[in-house]
Amino acid sequence: MRSPQSRILLPAFLILFCAPLGAQKIDIPDIPGYKTLQCDFHMHTVFSDGVVWPAVRVDEAAREGLAAISITDHLENRRKDVTSSRNRTHDTAKQSAKDKRVILIRGGEITRAMPPGHLNAIFSKDNDALYKEDWRESLAEAKKQGAFITWNHPGWDRQQPHTTRWLPEHEEIYKNGWMHGIEIANGGDYFPEAFQWALDKKLTIIGASDAHQPIQAYADFAKGEHRTMTLVFAKARTEEAIREALDNRRTAVFFKDFIHGEEQWLRPLLEKSLVVQKITHKPAATSGASTSARTEKYEIVFKNNSGLLFCLKKIVPGAPSHYFREYIIKPQGQLTLSVGTPAETGSDEISFEVSNFLTTPKTPLIHTIKLLPTPAAKTTK
Amino acid sequence: MRSPQSRILLPAFLILFCAPLGAQKIDIPDIPGYKTLQCDFHMHTVFSDGVVWPAVRVDEAAREGLAAISITDHLENRRKDVTSSRNRTHDTAKQSAKDKRVILIRGGEITRAMPPGHLNAIFSKDNDALYKEDWRESLAEAKKQGAFITWNHPGWDRQQPHTTRWLPEHEEIYKNGWMHGIEIANGGDYFPEAFQWALDKKLTIIGASDAHQPIQAYADFAKGEHRTMTLVFAKARTEEAIREALDNRRTAVFFKDFIHGEEQWLRPLLEKSLVVQKITHKPAATSGASTSARTEKYEIVFKNNSGLLFCLKKIVPGAPSHYFREYIIKPQGQLTLSVGTPAETGSDEISFEVSNFLTTPKTPLIHTIKLLPTPAAKTTK
Amino acid sequence: MRSPQSRILLPAFLILFCAPLGAQKIDIPDIPGYKTLQCDFHMHTVFSDGVVWPAVRVDEAAREGLAAISITDHLENRRKDVTSSRNRTHDTAKQSAKDKRVILIRGGEITRAMPPGHLNAIFSKDNDALYKEDWRESLAEAKKQGAFITWNHPGWDRQQPHTTRWLPEHEEIYKNGWMHGIEIANGGDYFPEAFQWALDKKLTIIGASDAHQPIQAYADFAKGEHRTMTLVFAKARTEEAIREALDNRRTAVFFKDFIHGEEQWLRPLLEKSLVVQKITHKPAATSGASTSARTEKYEIVFKNNSGLLFCLKKIVPGAPSHYFREYIIKPQGQLTLSVGTPAETGSDEISFEVSNFLTTPKTPLIHTIKLLPTPAAKTTK
Amino acid sequence: MRSPQSRILLPAFLILFCAPLGAQKIDIPDIPGYKTLQCDFHMHTVFSDGVVWPAVRVDEAAREGLAAISITDHLENRRKDVTSSRNRTHDTAKQSAKDKRVILIRGGEITRAMPPGHLNAIFSKDNDALYKEDWRESLAEAKKQGAFITWNHPGWDRQQPHTTRWLPEHEEIYKNGWMHGIEIANGGDYFPEAFQWALDKKLTIIGASDAHQPIQAYADFAKGEHRTMTLVFAKARTEEAIREALDNRRTAVFFKDFIHGEEQWLRPLLEKSLVVQKITHKPAATSGASTSARTEKYEIVFKNNSGLLFCLKKIVPGAPSHYFREYIIKPQGQLTLSVGTPAETGSDEISFEVSNFLTTPKTPLIHTIKLLPTPAAKTTK
Repeated sequence: MRSPQSRILLPAFLILFCAPLGAQKIDIPDIPGYKTLQCDFHMHTVFSDGVVWPAVRVDEAAREGLAAISITDHLENRRKDVTSSRNRTHDTAKQSAKDKRVILIRGGEITRAMPPGHLNAIFSKDNDALYKEDWRESLAEAKKQGAFITWNHPGWDRQQPHTTRWLPEHEEIYKNGWMHGIEIANGGDYFPEAFQWALDKKLTIIGASDAHQPIQAYADFAKGEHRTMTLVFAKARTEEAIREALDNRRTAVFFKDFIHGEEQWLRPLLEKSLVVQKITHKPAATSGASTSARTEKYEIVFKNNSGLLFCLKKIVPGAPSHYFREYIIKPQGQLTLSVGTPAETGSDEISFEVSNFLTTPKTPLIHTIKLLPTPAAKTTK
Repeated sequence: MRSPQSRILLPAFLILFCAPLGAQKIDIPDIPGYKTLQCDFHMHTVFSDGVVWPAVRVDEAAREGLAAISITDHLENRRKDVTSSRNRTHDTAKQSAKDKRVILIRGGEITRAMPPGHLNAIFSKDNDALYKEDWRESLAEAKKQGAFITWNHPGWDRQQPHTTRWLPEHEEIYKNGWMHGIEIANGGDYFPEAFQWALDKKLTIIGASDAHQPIQAYADFAKGEHRTMTLVFAKARTEEAIREALDNRRTAVFFKDFIHGEEQWLRPLLEKSLVVQKITHKPAATSGASTSARTEKYEIVFKNNSGLLFCLKKIVPGAPSHYFREYIIKPQGQLTLSVGTPAETGSDEISFEVSNFLTTPKTPLIHTIKLLPTPAAKTTK
Repeated sequence: MRSPQSRILLPAFLILFCAPLGAQKIDIPDIPGYKTLQCDFHMHTVFSDGVVWPAVRVDEAAREGLAAISITDHLENRRKDVTSSRNRTHDTAKQSAKDKRVILIRGGEITRAMPPGHLNAIFSKDNDALYKEDWRESLAEAKKQGAFITWNHPGWDRQQPHTTRWLPEHEEIYKNGWMHGIEIANGGDYFPEAFQWALDKKLTIIGASDAHQPIQAYADFAKGEHRTMTLVFAKARTEEAIREALDNRRTAVFFKDFIHGEEQWLRPLLEKSLVVQKITHKPAATSGASTSARTEKYEIVFKNNSGLLFCLKKIVPGAPSHYFREYIIKPQGQLTLSVGTPAETGSDEISFEVSNFLTTPKTPLIHTIKLLPTPAAKTTK
Repeated sequence: MRSPQSRILLPAFLILFCAPLGAQKIDIPDIPGYKTLQCDFHMHTVFSDGVVWPAVRVDEAAREGLAAISITDHLENRRKDVTSSRNRTHDTAKQSAKDKRVILIRGGEITRAMPPGHLNAIFSKDNDALYKEDWRESLAEAKKQGAFITWNHPGWDRQQPHTTRWLPEHEEIYKNGWMHGIEIANGGDYFPEAFQWALDKKLTIIGASDAHQPIQAYADFAKGEHRTMTLVFAKARTEEAIREALDNRRTAVFFKDFIHGEEQWLRPLLEKSLVVQKITHKPAATSGASTSARTEKYEIVFKNNSGLLFCLKKIVPGAPSHYFREYIIKPQGQLTLSVGTPAETGSDEISFEVSNFLTTPKTPLIHTIKLLPTPAAKTTK
């Protein structure tokens, strides 16, 4: 008997999407010299302990406007119903990625109890060959294949239930050149220790969804949420350019409303996103004006041209107050605020902490603006 | 070497849902004598040509408040990476269904070109045994197993590109007792011919998502959409009671804003959902009132206690107009409307077509209301 | 004592909008020769029985992308707290309209019991002069001022509780040249009788929100809803061009998911919005293909480039079936569907009723497509 | 001639709400001994520089589930088109408030340049009498009327462009018994200095929307946002009980995702909202388990029974790390987390900073949980 199986001519994947699935592309501007690519290098499918087919990961990425993904199924945690080669994850998604113009980077997760925990090898060549009894052999093989290796979720509470520690095994991995990057944010978790280690040890910072479920489980798109991701500042939108940027640590991490990264990338990102539209000098109101102060002030109009949110805290250097005032500028939003004049503040500049742009785990980016009324806006009288 | 595979102690499925995924439970009232169970008896997973793992189907159902589902993977269209028994779909999802209190009914889809097209066997016992070269043998086996058999998407345009026809093969299937139900709605498609056949041939009407993608691809929950489903009027929330209701044709189909089904179920559903809160007699305005008519009228206040939408068209029997007025009452919404008095209309009743409650493909339910002012609401003066 | 009132220097309207208020601009394409302007010529403020200040109406219009509005406060129904000139509605909103680039057209509503009911005079010159004891005098004055006069909500159930009638007073108004347009949709109500009268009597069709509350009370923008509006096909985005278009009956009415209007405007609007991307000939599957028919067919790919929704019903001329198949193409959505070949259908064309594009109250637009495979898409083998 | 005005019989306010306007009631639990009433005591209408009619404020409050509001139009900033008594704001909204069961408290805003800025007098008796040339006279009159007086938006940058200062005038007001409460949050602004002053000087803390626009301008309800408000812990849902609670400083301020207030109110609010469902002891994994640690741990399951969000930061007392781990528990959400055992941590308790529950401007509430496995959850083996 000929099997009915053999007669299938058409793969039945021609599903028509009626519902837009709610995903929103977030507008994050390029910076001088580099494209800002939104990437997610850590996620799973039914080929390990995830619950979706690889093509779903490509669809999700395309809807959210990601430039690149790597599907990094565990080499070890596999289902008894899905037992084919560890390279199938990538291979089954390739055509779909090509069609939807998502860069698909081969990768796999080397999965152990702590220590050393979980590590991703992306830009791997053969995932079956990565799979070894001894994790040291796996990492050596990954290095041999030219993979970019990251330590994943260092402070995952299921593996480090007390504090986040850099253990001797991590030192060994690092010394051997088996660790190039480190996740400082994974899904809903942020690991400030890892951010500091990355700065100290010159590791590339990574943020990733680590999605196992459909991506809607991690981001309520209708509320403007997004997955945790890595921003890669690359010379082009190509796989090679992404690798070059990772090797040269040109990344930032986009986690909830926060951007984490070195000042050299966060400053141009801020400047391209948030512009001062107008500064106006407002003289002191004459006596009695009910809604204004009796002292002169400047009015600054900010415009946010990006899909990012900005949280500005005004710094008042010599003030008796210990508190900063906080202003939120929503995606594509605008903000008008009043600040004191040099006569009052002793400076012709005003500075803000951008409290959601962090250049170390403890250091917000400082944004300073010169208080020169813009030419079009003459002093009102 | 011992395989790392063997050391996995914990399946890594303990994913924490942070985002509520936007699904909304829709409040559909019980009717006298029966529970109204929201059910979906047709969907797919990676065990055929779907793209999610079976437990995802249970999660989706639980979030949407479904009482029961059947995961009906194609017996034939299977992936080369997932080749285990045709019973695995159901078996892998059983524990999850138990935990989330979703009734999981075993089922499979017998998949052929037209004729006869696709048929589901739900309440099957052994899906591997259902899989046969000859579809007649598959259906005979399904019957032997005591399955409830439905003809799926009779008018799917990929199989019936011109019109929807009941072919000799369907007559044969029907005569053999191999067809107990028929899908009158599948995903985004509605098949009015199938509804009429169901009424004529005493088949049970079924509506189903036929989901292959994550359910979010079929319903934009943030916009209040829902999957296509079967409403089962069952004596209890159990698998046995669902079967008894299906065998006795106590179903309706919830497709977009429409409810399709026999009057005996639609009328109590309407009456439990939409109540008249108040009827007030409004005498004629004295001359000059700018916003009112100079003729007397009644004012009716409707309250919708359900998550369904109601579309009422006022019937004006002897009127010269050929048009009906249409009123929409949204889920949990309210509507106040004015109607003529017996002096004008010749009747102390007012009737509406409930144009989204269809008792045949061409017949809306008629809702008639006696125009007696409610006691609390005395005639205003 | 000098009043504190006199010392107010700054009007305190510098409210910063933080929340985007959820409004969505709906993309409706221009048609050959004309711009498609989204307009709403009927709404209220606190200057009659509305509950918002006039500038709110301008803000709302700007957020929704409307080209023009007219704020048509009742000349009669006024609040005892707000008693200044009937021209103040318009005058207080002028600057705001200029700033936000919304065309603001002066107007007022002449408000009587039925008959004759309510009539709007837009493009009026002096609303105080329109206000008369006798409605005939009001209308004569409106005509004298060069106003464009419309009969509003002819079938409002509070004024016509039984059926919608054209009364002798309306005939008189029409004969006197005091009625140029007629609302066929107002808020949530649609008046098919009025649409037919407009076609027969050469009146301009109008759709309007008649908003009294904040606009969010009438459209749940988060769910993609919009206000009822008039589409004006104008030579330019100016007040004069809008008047010229109204005078020449170049309008359509956008009510819920429906577009009502003459075929000469609806056809180009359809053609600019909904394009056929690809037609592919699919030969008959050889025996056994599980998901396809054994007959050959064409596959048509539609792309909706607009923010409108399309509801297509396939017409099967000689078919035994009396039912049409219905397809929904969402805003910016895509649809692939299969249709029979000439061998089966007897025609090398396929026709659809666009059931939400109505050229009379009973006539959907017919959309016919030639079944020629697109060059790029060769017959698959 | 009789004026058409005189013939108006019915005010035309019978607007039917079709769209639910997206507002969401937020579930905030009562605390032992007191009802938790959501209140907003500061907002405007067209009777000063707001843009909505008073009844709109009642509608908004009812939809959001507020127990009480005060409409506090500026006594001074009034429109030339709306000049009736300063008591009309309240009086026109009274019937509507009664119908919708919203407690409406009379109030007005005494509006001056800084110093002293703006102060609200709520529970006033006659707003016309409050209106004086000299603000000291206004405040004295307010006190005489028995009003509850608050200093509004002390750090509004238009009035205090440099830092937030308590000026001699405020000291005078305070000493005279003319200040009973102080806004620590107003619209999108938060004033930590004011919170500290309130604690030091025994003032009642207040949060308010200060809405001038329709409320949708301040909260994107579809995204789960809410207006800034005061939580009043009152003995009953009555005007008198609210006054008693205000006089006794039983309030908290709900601003964005933050609750500000004294520990005596925040702790029971936390305990009623966030419960520990289960604590499970997890022994150390035997060698090789890929996803777990090799050390034993506890697993805690939290359930959030409220509509509030909780942000927990785990405190690790003796740990070398300086960082806390942060966990978000969304409204009605759940969280499972792993913590070290006494063997590792030296304590059988685990503590968290609830970083969005602030008992001073610098002090988060500490939440400590005893690590006793719950009886139902036996140690897994």
